[in-house]
Amino acid sequence: MRATLRCSMCVNYRRVCALPRHTIFASHRKQHTHKVTAFSSKSMEKFDLPKRLQGSTPSVWNEYIALAMQYKPLNLGQGFPDDAAPEYVTNSLADIAKDKNPLLHQYTRGNGHVRLVQALSKLYSGLVGKELNPLSDILITSGAYEALYSTIMGHVDEGEEVIIIEPFFDCYEPMVKMARGVPRFIPLKLREKDGPISSADWVLDDAELEKLFNEKTKMIILNTPHNPTGKVFHRQELERIAELCRKWNVLCVSDEVYEWLVFDGVEHVRICTLPGMWDRTITIGSAGKTFSVTGWKIGWAYGPHDLIRNLQMVHQNSVYTCPTPLQEGVARSFEVELARLGKPESYFLTLPRELQPKRDFMAKFLSDAGMRPTIPEGGYFMLADWSPLAQKLDLSSEPDRHRDYKFTKWMTKNMGLQGIPPSAFYSEPNKHLGEDFVRYCFIKKQANLDKAAELLKQWN
Amino acid sequence: MRATLRCSMCVNYRRVCALPRHTIFASHRKQHTHKVTAFSSKSMEKFDLPKRLQGSTPSVWNEYIALAMQYKPLNLGQGFPDDAAPEYVTNSLADIAKDKNPLLHQYTRGNGHVRLVQALSKLYSGLVGKELNPLSDILITSGAYEALYSTIMGHVDEGEEVIIIEPFFDCYEPMVKMARGVPRFIPLKLREKDGPISSADWVLDDAELEKLFNEKTKMIILNTPHNPTGKVFHRQELERIAELCRKWNVLCVSDEVYEWLVFDGVEHVRICTLPGMWDRTITIGSAGKTFSVTGWKIGWAYGPHDLIRNLQMVHQNSVYTCPTPLQEGVARSFEVELARLGKPESYFLTLPRELQPKRDFMAKFLSDAGMRPTIPEGGYFMLADWSPLAQKLDLSSEPDRHRDYKFTKWMTKNMGLQGIPPSAFYSEPNKHLGEDFVRYCFIKKQANLDKAAELLKQWN
Repeated sequence: MRATLRCSMCVNYRRVCALPRHTIFASHRKQHTHKVTAFSSKSMEKFDLPKRLQGSTPSVWNEYIALAMQYKPLNLGQGFPDDAAPEYVTNSLADIAKDKNPLLHQYTRGNGHVRLVQALSKLYSGLVGKELNPLSDILITSGAYEALYSTIMGHVDEGEEVIIIEPFFDCYEPMVKMARGVPRFIPLKLREKDGPISSADWVLDDAELEKLFNEKTKMIILNTPHNPTGKVFHRQELERIAELCRKWNVLCVSDEVYEWLVFDGVEHVRICTLPGMWDRTITIGSAGKTFSVTGWKIGWAYGPHDLIRNLQMVHQNSVYTCPTPLQEGVARSFEVELARLGKPESYFLTLPRELQPKRDFMAKFLSDAGMRPTIPEGGYFMLADWSPLAQKLDLSSEPDRHRDYKFTKWMTKNMGLQGIPPSAFYSEPNKHLGEDFVRYCFIKKQANLDKAAELLKQWN
Repeated sequence: MRATLRCSMCVNYRRVCALPRHTIFASHRKQHTHKVTAFSSKSMEKFDLPKRLQGSTPSVWNEYIALAMQYKPLNLGQGFPDDAAPEYVTNSLADIAKDKNPLLHQYTRGNGHVRLVQALSKLYSGLVGKELNPLSDILITSGAYEALYSTIMGHVDEGEEVIIIEPFFDCYEPMVKMARGVPRFIPLKLREKDGPISSADWVLDDAELEKLFNEKTKMIILNTPHNPTGKVFHRQELERIAELCRKWNVLCVSDEVYEWLVFDGVEHVRICTLPGMWDRTITIGSAGKTFSVTGWKIGWAYGPHDLIRNLQMVHQNSVYTCPTPLQEGVARSFEVELARLGKPESYFLTLPRELQPKRDFMAKFLSDAGMRPTIPEGGYFMLADWSPLAQKLDLSSEPDRHRDYKFTKWMTKNMGLQGIPPSAFYSEPNKHLGEDFVRYCFIKKQANLDKAAELLKQWN
């Protein structure tokens, strides 16, 4: 049989006779069986995805952004502020665009614009208590996303194991698979308790964690403050992870993009500052999350040069250099903040201070609506258990396999309120652990939070 | 023996006893033997580069940018304009930075900002005579560089062969190796002739090209207008390549970042428009080269959705989305140009018109200095044969293996004029083919070109 099919979800070509392969994918997402496209010649099979990408599917973001474009709900899904960024940040970009120096619009240094790596070196040298060399210990990337990618592709070899804590920022898994590494998952578990839940109630099982480490373990990916639970790993929890990293000679990748977003006086501890950890930690940060300009896509990784060099090699082969005007703008913004670091007017303090009441407001309106929110100690997401509402809802119109997908899609279409289904942040065998939850983002204008509260109130 | 060494050129860890491995690399670049660093523990060996990156070296750009920072020569090396970009382009960025819509600073659609893909779809649908779907047939990337990377990583599987025409933009080779593909090289050869040399005199040997195609060939990478020769592949040459692509069912990647920079009325032919080629061609473009803002790092790939989808998967896993304000700025700039496409005031016509006299000026002063330039029909580089000067020069102070590296470094340090050594654009066995040449960039202020002419004149 000569006709081939290409499935728009798994993005692989298959001959018609290989359709059963599709039904495997179809078990993930029902749409599969509907979206295959016939081709007239088998020659296109040659242009199938290479092995490193087979089984990859479009991310939850593609699906939910398309959904938002179609239904135009109040969008509490994606993690970005819908209010203006600080004026001195956006003004810096306007100034740069109009600057008399034409070179601000041309290529800059591949591993990072000098003014920016100098500012970051000043900032982090103070924070980690170690002098960072701006030219060798810091790499500027296309968002923290590319920093993660360069770290994983630059360090993980075929067959090496990478420990990922669930729920996880959804790109960790495909990145590890693209490096032909083997992800090993361990879920945070919610302690049984009455009364309000804190993100600190989501914990790792020590024995389970210890069992995951072995001779093949290359890397553990930590995310603190954590997306989506808002957990800020406490010093004692980090010490346990550090101990295992030292014992098994394992690299720790610490995704700290929400480093400034901590509430209730909780301390953000950088794991690279724990004994023996500097030499085995790559820490990742984000200008988008730091200055509320996620669309600028400037991120970085820092650590000892001997670890950062591997990332530089991936960066050199994939992106090479990041936008000059945006790097210059981030540099100027950091210079403003460096001058007022620790002072009350510091944006790194005012932002969480302004955000905490929004967090509490959201926790209240979700509780009033009958959900059970986890109060986050950090970040700008709230995980809420919506299962108490399940009996009131008829989600049968939604064909998805996972209940949280059904719930969030139903809510988008029928209530005009969009959240993200957390099962997207779990590995296949553990997806059921996310199904009772929905993730909402609270770094939104008060007017929009009010509207969300009103929508839920009317519904009840 | 427990101590390990890390070589700063090959970036691999080796135990002391494995030093001979270093001497292999040392044959490439003499610095190797000097720059290894001793480590106290063999545990760091675990963090060596993964196989896909072993043997990678920092690119020629790292070395020559560092050189420029140290010696501050007149820099005709890197390919960017040192004059102001069009005002409406840089103004658009200033307007966006100050726009009342805060979402222009937040994440946009992963596969491309809608306004930008719509503008590109309008532009290229007209140019290729086929309706491009803005949402599925175009991917926006972190510069054309990431478009190349996504194309290669998204299509080339382990062991598949990729034909690369020499000299080549130096990232093609490490990208193919990172995909574990096998690069197969074919050099453009300079026809023997008296009198001025045109880039059209650099030609492929038909029989040699035909012999390279086989069952394992997955892809050929074409670059027209070509960097560094300036060759604009003529229709007949493209038809020959297209015929072989069709015969062997091979994907053609056409790097056309200099598409608007053609001189002497020569036509830039898009290979995707040749019969049977649309379905097997991915074409790559660059806002940096189109609007003289290389620091914006916005590029794209377009082609049939079934080929572009593979790129989207790599993009989704590595960068995810490109900067919103810069994409919006490029979109607005294209809208300006779409309204005056083909008219005399079109920047796509004024830029090459203004550049051609600079090309001719450079060709003259290089000839006067005793070099033999290739007059390019496109792009903004000029390759010049400096070997007639060899007898006048004592390059023994420069320890590099290749004569063009010696020459360009000597010139930077002693004459204050920097060019790029073209052997960087050849595979290891063919590097000798580039040694008689130097690459200069002529999209520079007239004052700087005058200065270069003066420097060479005084020297003579």
